[in-house]
Amino acid sequence: MNSSEFRRRGKEMVDYVANYMEGIESRQVYPDVEPGYLRPLIPATAPQEPDTFEDIISDIEKIIMPGVTHWHSPYFFAYFPTASSYPAMLADMLCGAIGCIGFSWAASPACTELETVMMDWLGKMLKLPEAFLAGSAGEGGGVIQGSASEATLVALLAARTKVIRQVQAASPELTPAAIMEKLVAYASDQAHSSVERAGLIGGVKLKAIPSDGCFAMRESALREAVERDKAAGLIPFFVVATLGTTSCCSFDNLLEVGPLCNKEDLWLHIDAAYAGSAFICPEFRPLLNGVEFADSFNFNPHKWLLVNFDCSAMWVKKRTDLTGAFKLDPVYLKHSHQDSGLITDYRHWQLPLGRRFRSLKMWFVFRMYGVKGLQAYIRKFIALSHTIESLFQYRIIYYICAEVILGLVCFRLKGSNKMNEDLLQRINSAKKIHLVPCHLRDKFVLRFAICSRTVESAHVQRAWEHIRELAWDVLRAERE
Amino acid sequence: MNSSEFRRRGKEMVDYVANYMEGIESRQVYPDVEPGYLRPLIPATAPQEPDTFEDIISDIEKIIMPGVTHWHSPYFFAYFPTASSYPAMLADMLCGAIGCIGFSWAASPACTELETVMMDWLGKMLKLPEAFLAGSAGEGGGVIQGSASEATLVALLAARTKVIRQVQAASPELTPAAIMEKLVAYASDQAHSSVERAGLIGGVKLKAIPSDGCFAMRESALREAVERDKAAGLIPFFVVATLGTTSCCSFDNLLEVGPLCNKEDLWLHIDAAYAGSAFICPEFRPLLNGVEFADSFNFNPHKWLLVNFDCSAMWVKKRTDLTGAFKLDPVYLKHSHQDSGLITDYRHWQLPLGRRFRSLKMWFVFRMYGVKGLQAYIRKFIALSHTIESLFQYRIIYYICAEVILGLVCFRLKGSNKMNEDLLQRINSAKKIHLVPCHLRDKFVLRFAICSRTVESAHVQRAWEHIRELAWDVLRAERE
Repeated sequence: MNSSEFRRRGKEMVDYVANYMEGIESRQVYPDVEPGYLRPLIPATAPQEPDTFEDIISDIEKIIMPGVTHWHSPYFFAYFPTASSYPAMLADMLCGAIGCIGFSWAASPACTELETVMMDWLGKMLKLPEAFLAGSAGEGGGVIQGSASEATLVALLAARTKVIRQVQAASPELTPAAIMEKLVAYASDQAHSSVERAGLIGGVKLKAIPSDGCFAMRESALREAVERDKAAGLIPFFVVATLGTTSCCSFDNLLEVGPLCNKEDLWLHIDAAYAGSAFICPEFRPLLNGVEFADSFNFNPHKWLLVNFDCSAMWVKKRTDLTGAFKLDPVYLKHSHQDSGLITDYRHWQLPLGRRFRSLKMWFVFRMYGVKGLQAYIRKFIALSHTIESLFQYRIIYYICAEVILGLVCFRLKGSNKMNEDLLQRINSAKKIHLVPCHLRDKFVLRFAICSRTVESAHVQRAWEHIRELAWDVLRAERE
Repeated sequence: MNSSEFRRRGKEMVDYVANYMEGIESRQVYPDVEPGYLRPLIPATAPQEPDTFEDIISDIEKIIMPGVTHWHSPYFFAYFPTASSYPAMLADMLCGAIGCIGFSWAASPACTELETVMMDWLGKMLKLPEAFLAGSAGEGGGVIQGSASEATLVALLAARTKVIRQVQAASPELTPAAIMEKLVAYASDQAHSSVERAGLIGGVKLKAIPSDGCFAMRESALREAVERDKAAGLIPFFVVATLGTTSCCSFDNLLEVGPLCNKEDLWLHIDAAYAGSAFICPEFRPLLNGVEFADSFNFNPHKWLLVNFDCSAMWVKKRTDLTGAFKLDPVYLKHSHQDSGLITDYRHWQLPLGRRFRSLKMWFVFRMYGVKGLQAYIRKFIALSHTIESLFQYRIIYYICAEVILGLVCFRLKGSNKMNEDLLQRINSAKKIHLVPCHLRDKFVLRFAICSRTVESAHVQRAWEHIRELAWDVLRAERE
């Protein structure tokens, strides 16, 4: 394909994309296909000679779309939102064309420098403490990771390296493995599964701290665990506090947990994957109070801030904590500026070596929405979640299972888990809307998350009426 | 931005991209900027009110392009190629619009199933042993990782979990940490820095095996290390063999190393990040002989197979080895089909939870080039590298430092390291072409890699003449 054909096909694709987004509401949100549907529809091997673009485009509707779960349908209320906006898509086109791999400053100075400045812009929108910003001479700064899972793992590995060096300095006879055996990390029993995974990968114990009645990690429970472990000769070193848990969007008590971490010299990492975007609104910024106690902070603009996946924003107070954990410098990656102290080589901040020019998406989105536009977007979601909350709240057959703070409503039918499983099964079989469940303690709970950029109160109202009908079916079936 | 504005702006962006690619040859390949150039050019904070699209587009040429290293310029001969093609860019536009996060089958069946089938297509192109293919009932299969670094780490972690379980089964009194202390992984002294990093992250020893005179890892050196470590009470468990090293594109001897790994029950991971694409040509497929001994195999279509970053293809013979290492199943990610055994939840195959619909890029590229088109692309690069090889070979002031097998030529001036450092510095200061160096043993070597999709022999010829002129400057300076 030469560039003149690309001009033609690219414009056709722009129209396909716009048509898809405009018509998404009329597509069934969850597909009808069964596992294995796709393989029989396409050849067993790649073609020897080129296919035409027309063939491929027509296969999209025939082969791909029937198996797509439409995450951007206004009837998609599952998981958490994943961001989608036109400015981010435009930036991604440019990113693909430049196609640089920004592992070092020299590999593409613009790629590295725009990222540092965009992370400062975003940090300022969140009113992060100055220590997290790179500025022109800061010790901290931000980096775009691929996902919150990677950010948690990177923080844990940095903390692990740091504590191993500290312990070895005091007790040079201990091997790293002997120290690792004693290390303990902590997170709430409501933390995301990726936190447990980070512990597994990093080869350290991860202990779940029982959350309180509001599903929040409190100082007393954490302190108890830390003291017990210290008494047993273990070495507490790392705490993940979650702001906006995946199950029910609860918030660990940072203002309690933070000072304890500082006192005990535990690395405090904050995982605000979903909730973080809301902190750009002054009225939700208090939820982030206590961030000043943290060593690292992460949230995903690719969830709720209109920057398409992947864009997970992570800040650290001391960049040398990250670079110290990962720095390896082969000759083929060296460049003349790298020892100047003025520049950033982001390969030392992350797990992979390669990285795309992702800050372009932030730049386009922040500029084309403006901070006020982004704030309005957050507020719209939260207003919609309160709408759905109030619809459930005033009917006696439901209750709300956790405080509705942002865009997630956890509810259940009054009755058994089986009834609620039945309700969810009816909802997802009807395929008019799509939800996923969670467990809160021993309760099976339905999660209703405001997700799509184009969702409006009419969609929420229709979803509610649909759930209400199916709920009555459940109740009727129960009585029979 | 609504969809009608996107239609307009998207088409403008398509033209911008096509103009950029068409005109890239006339842009200076390496930028003139100094560290810190960008920050003063843009505001210190995000705008409150939206900027216009016109402002943003004009800032691309003013602010971004002056700091871009043009990886797709036909005068870029640095690192290794990174893929860029129009079909992949079109697919990425579609990927952005669908915007699903394919962590499980249910999260978007098409995303998971196309990936499985595309990995089979690609596996067949490479003539991988049947055991690596998913088929409809295979135990193996492929997955798209973000980078070769992640693939190596995932393989190491899977191998670590497997050996810990084996050792614990035999010696239940040993803790995982006590076992980890004894684990040893191996790779050639020419392996990529990401292998050393995987060892660091996984908390296991990684030993460098001295390569032979052709920079290849041989059985004898590996066997010696394994036997010495076993005698010392350590537990060898993992070997990375590199096909196409980053420094000089040398090949570890798989046919020797593979049987040893099988005999000693060591997980063998093959990292063919760059070279792997060449194996789709029958004449280069013998370089992959011995893959049948491996447990996992990885290469990067995003390097040399026209699929834009990120697309790192990884296959395993036993998918349960990966999923056994990572599987955690919270309720909010459960779905009705997951226990059917028919489906794949790719979140258990990788480090992050989120993932884009990356197989669309493979599907578009494979179909629009056809296997023959892809083979022709590989052959063009290799012919060009032999052109440059012969230009150096027949001048007495240079020598070729490693056998030219694929698209990389390692050369140096006969003389001191200082002279060669001087030559590279002159080349990269002139900024007409861009190269990076490597060390081969104690020698400072210049790497000339064929990189750009649009590079032709005229560019290579011009690059050669430019190097020749600068080399004479070095020689003259030396004599003075």
